Amino acid sequence: MLSILKRYLIGKPLKTTELGEQKLSNTKALAILSSDALSSVAYGPEQILIVLATVGAVAYWYSIPIGIGVLILLLALILSYRQIIFSYPHGGGAYVVSKQNLGVIPGLVAGGSLLVDYILTVAVSVSAGTDAITSAIPILHSHTVFIAVLLVIFITILNLRGLTESASILAYPVYLFVVALVIIIVVGLFNVITGNGPQVTHSPIGTTIPGGISLFLLLKAFSSGCSALTGVEAISNAIPNFKEPSERNAAKTLTMMGLILAVLFSGIMFLAYWYSITPNAEETVMSQLGSEIFGRNIIYYFIQGTTALILVLAANTGFSAFPLLAYNLASDKFMPRMYLLRGDRLGYSNGIITLGVASILLIIAFQGKTEQLIPLYAVGVFVPFTLSQTGMVIKWLREKPANWFPKMITNLVGALISALVSIIFLTTKFNQVWSILVFLPLIVYLFLTIRKHYEAVGDQLRLNNDIPDKIKGNIMIVPVAGITKVVERTMQYAQGIADEVYAVYISFDKESEQQMRDKWETWNPNVKLIVVHSEYREITRPLLKVIDQMEQKAHENGFEITVLIPQFITKKNWHNVLHNQSSLLLRAYLLHKRSVIVTTVPYRFKV
Amino acid sequence: MLSILKRYLIGKPLKTTELGEQKLSNTKALAILSSDALSSVAYGPEQILIVLATVGAVAYWYSIPIGIGVLILLLALILSYRQIIFSYPHGGGAYVVSKQNLGVIPGLVAGGSLLVDYILTVAVSVSAGTDAITSAIPILHSHTVFIAVLLVIFITILNLRGLTESASILAYPVYLFVVALVIIIVVGLFNVITGNGPQVTHSPIGTTIPGGISLFLLLKAFSSGCSALTGVEAISNAIPNFKEPSERNAAKTLTMMGLILAVLFSGIMFLAYWYSITPNAEETVMSQLGSEIFGRNIIYYFIQGTTALILVLAANTGFSAFPLLAYNLASDKFMPRMYLLRGDRLGYSNGIITLGVASILLIIAFQGKTEQLIPLYAVGVFVPFTLSQTGMVIKWLREKPANWFPKMITNLVGALISALVSIIFLTTKFNQVWSILVFLPLIVYLFLTIRKHYEAVGDQLRLNNDIPDKIKGNIMIVPVAGITKVVERTMQYAQGIADEVYAVYISFDKESEQQMRDKWETWNPNVKLIVVHSEYREITRPLLKVIDQMEQKAHENGFEITVLIPQFITKKNWHNVLHNQSSLLLRAYLLHKRSVIVTTVPYRFKV
Repeated sequence: MLSILKRYLIGKPLKTTELGEQKLSNTKALAILSSDALSSVAYGPEQILIVLATVGAVAYWYSIPIGIGVLILLLALILSYRQIIFSYPHGGGAYVVSKQNLGVIPGLVAGGSLLVDYILTVAVSVSAGTDAITSAIPILHSHTVFIAVLLVIFITILNLRGLTESASILAYPVYLFVVALVIIIVVGLFNVITGNGPQVTHSPIGTTIPGGISLFLLLKAFSSGCSALTGVEAISNAIPNFKEPSERNAAKTLTMMGLILAVLFSGIMFLAYWYSITPNAEETVMSQLGSEIFGRNIIYYFIQGTTALILVLAANTGFSAFPLLAYNLASDKFMPRMYLLRGDRLGYSNGIITLGVASILLIIAFQGKTEQLIPLYAVGVFVPFTLSQTGMVIKWLREKPANWFPKMITNLVGALISALVSIIFLTTKFNQVWSILVFLPLIVYLFLTIRKHYEAVGDQLRLNNDIPDKIKGNIMIVPVAGITKVVERTMQYAQGIADEVYAVYISFDKESEQQMRDKWETWNPNVKLIVVHSEYREITRPLLKVIDQMEQKAHENGFEITVLIPQFITKKNWHNVLHNQSSLLLRAYLLHKRSVIVTTVPYRFKV
Repeated sequence: MLSILKRYLIGKPLKTTELGEQKLSNTKALAILSSDALSSVAYGPEQILIVLATVGAVAYWYSIPIGIGVLILLLALILSYRQIIFSYPHGGGAYVVSKQNLGVIPGLVAGGSLLVDYILTVAVSVSAGTDAITSAIPILHSHTVFIAVLLVIFITILNLRGLTESASILAYPVYLFVVALVIIIVVGLFNVITGNGPQVTHSPIGTTIPGGISLFLLLKAFSSGCSALTGVEAISNAIPNFKEPSERNAAKTLTMMGLILAVLFSGIMFLAYWYSITPNAEETVMSQLGSEIFGRNIIYYFIQGTTALILVLAANTGFSAFPLLAYNLASDKFMPRMYLLRGDRLGYSNGIITLGVASILLIIAFQGKTEQLIPLYAVGVFVPFTLSQTGMVIKWLREKPANWFPKMITNLVGALISALVSIIFLTTKFNQVWSILVFLPLIVYLFLTIRKHYEAVGDQLRLNNDIPDKIKGNIMIVPVAGITKVVERTMQYAQGIADEVYAVYISFDKESEQQMRDKWETWNPNVKLIVVHSEYREITRPLLKVIDQMEQKAHENGFEITVLIPQFITKKNWHNVLHNQSSLLLRAYLLHKRSVIVTTVPYRFKV
């Protein structure tokens, strides 16, 4: 049943040899890897306005200089990441770059930060997408959490099916979103130029704020706007997914993405200012802008629909990056080994599933109101930005190849701006991002603990180079509850392979004890029957006593002790209720508490 | 941890030889076994008034003739059950009596009916007790379900501790309740005689009802009143718990209980009529009567407190009877074998736990409003009443001992009245009791299915009388994932006991395949390495292929195949996440789907 459902949802398993076919063309890669960055445009400008709105509409003009600041930062990041792409053609995630140039701990800080961040990406993007849907169709407003969870499940399944297939589905919405935003920007600007603009008037640039505006607030608005830059690192993590020459293709795609992002961000930012949009909880800024320019007609719904789609699909960036990062961490033994395994469809399914489950939990915990998570999400991006750019600076200084100086300066600027943004975040939004100071050290500690365990286990399992000695003999202990076919079969087996066989009967009363002795005598399978009386009607302890008595003798002779447990295999599952399941408990006890070898002899009921 | 908690709650285990000490004196037996019957007085009269209240206060006088009807039925039942006690000194539950005299199906109908009924007893009594508490302390009213569940847990634990200990706790409240009711009746009657009675006037006996009253309604009220008689069968089930001579003692106790029940029932019924108490959902009739006669002073709270206590403890009757009945059914193979086992404290703990859990589920499902269950509960009692009395009639007719005729007539009267009450229930309260017509056949069917399974299994397990042949040889298959200490240990073991050993390496790619071959060659433990390539990165299927290939050869030579699976025993539980758990799945698959013998070799990590 379950496996049929799985087959249907995930598709038929792929052979390992089919792996090569999953490479991405530039257009597809742009769609998959930049949906996160591009979709940030849907909430980045809004984040700036939310901060400015605390002063009043009169302060909205500040969004223009702040927006320019964000664009400069974007430029710096794009240039820095181009250099990372060429230096780390096998995938230069912040984890790899920081670890190689700065050391293990900075690497783990970057890795842990990104890992959590991808979970936040999924939760935030899907929630924002759901908001876009419920802004357009208010009747769905009370089902936000349910819709968001369904969407995450849907994306998870797409990713379990494999990258290429999801790419085809994902390419169109991203381009549609770009088209939709271009339409809104072009028509909006046309209105502005022709004077068909909005009724309300915006505060002119340079308007003085009564009472002034604090630097603190401006920095806060700037850092909020930086959330529009999350996701620009995605391409540098995924270089091996590009067609050859993969670095050049990746760099081209990155530049393309930077350009599109810059155009969309400045357009939306400017129009929001010009139309003097006030952010509110019920309707997104994008939705307000759409209604202002087009009214609620078909174009509005088209824009809103593609926004929802791209936000939901932005979550997909997390799904591309998380499993890969988890794989990298796992192959360095900082995460459980299971993240190394490819699933039926060749994706790292454990990473995909972990991400899906974690983000669903976040969405439920925050009841879909994940805008509170955006600052955390943004700071979680800028910490690894800073670390990887710093790593690059160190690399240039150490290796000093041709032309290293301008390259070093580029990364240094990137590092400094990123560090600045991180610090602004931590000071201006401390009450929203303090938790990163708790969980990052915790995660790093966990990584190190896991690594320590694996190393200790590895030492313990390593062989000294000699051929194993056989054991000298084998004592088999068979608990019996009566004389039946099951016991017969177990005895046949035990006598065939053991040097000594003992049947152990645990009696609860003297009567049955004598009966059993007599019956055994008659049946006589050439096996000694040991009868132990259990005063407390309990099986494990008396049996252990027998084992303990034999153990010493066994070890002196180089013998091993094996306990043979017959197990009924019932024909129907509910039949298990009708049969004593103490063999399961006994087995678990012997293995885990006493390290005794246990052989299970199945006996299948025909009825 | 868990076992310490268990020890603390349940007490230290008792030896089987301590069993004899658990016999009951008559006074203790009266307390334990009649709390159900006596406590019925707390809701029986109320049930009659609830029906009459649908006509109006003018109809309350009918409660007197109806009450007399109930008393006559009580007399018939007590006489009949005395005869059962002497005929079935080993415990004459309805199940045993019906099965022996009427056949298996009527026996199972009686048994199934009682089994469900004991669950209802617990749910109804505890809920009614909780009502008595919340009538007195209204602030607790919103926590009814929680309080009721806590009480059931408490009683369950008492019972797991063992019969005698609970008896000491239970004896006092029952006698206190009797004292409390005697006080209320004596003071109430004194008021009535001295004319200090109630302000409101009751409708005199014989008052004509405007518009008349239907026979249907009167019968309904009568059958409702019969719920006061539930529990009178308890003593006849528990004869072996009495001190010698157990039949005489049981019969004496039964008569005593009948007398007390008659006095209390008539007293309360009469006072409720005389004080013209109108039943309502917030306050029980008993509580109203108490306030009317004493006001809300200390005596009121004493009465209310003991009522709550006895109702809660009435549940205990269910806990004495259910495990015993389950034991009887299980020893006839109609119920799972686990109900035959005595727990640490010598009670049949599986029965006790089943009853506790089932009644908690009922209480939660009905949100503590179990008055809807009372009719179901009553009809579930009268069906086995009818069957066991009929069984006795058949027995007298068949055996015809001295004086059989009056005895037969006594049981015949009992059978007829019980049958009549059952039919009245089914016709007047069909919408509340119809479910018995569904679940009784279902339960009987389940009983028969279980028996059929056990018999089929028994046939299958029975030995023909020959000594088992040894198997001729043993092939061991050891899946290996690399060359480590674990593999070394497994090989030592396998080579020591098997005639042929094969190591199987499942490779996911060609590279590791060659590596493994080379390493194995160097290590060379004199074991053949079979390498299987798994295209779909999956372990079970390729391994099964190897097993299948060997199986035919093995069977031709009388060899057995054993798969040896190493299992890591981690030092801390969370370490399990860090190690591949596929061995567990593999083992389950081999045992359950293929009936292959599996040996688990534990390897304990030191870290």
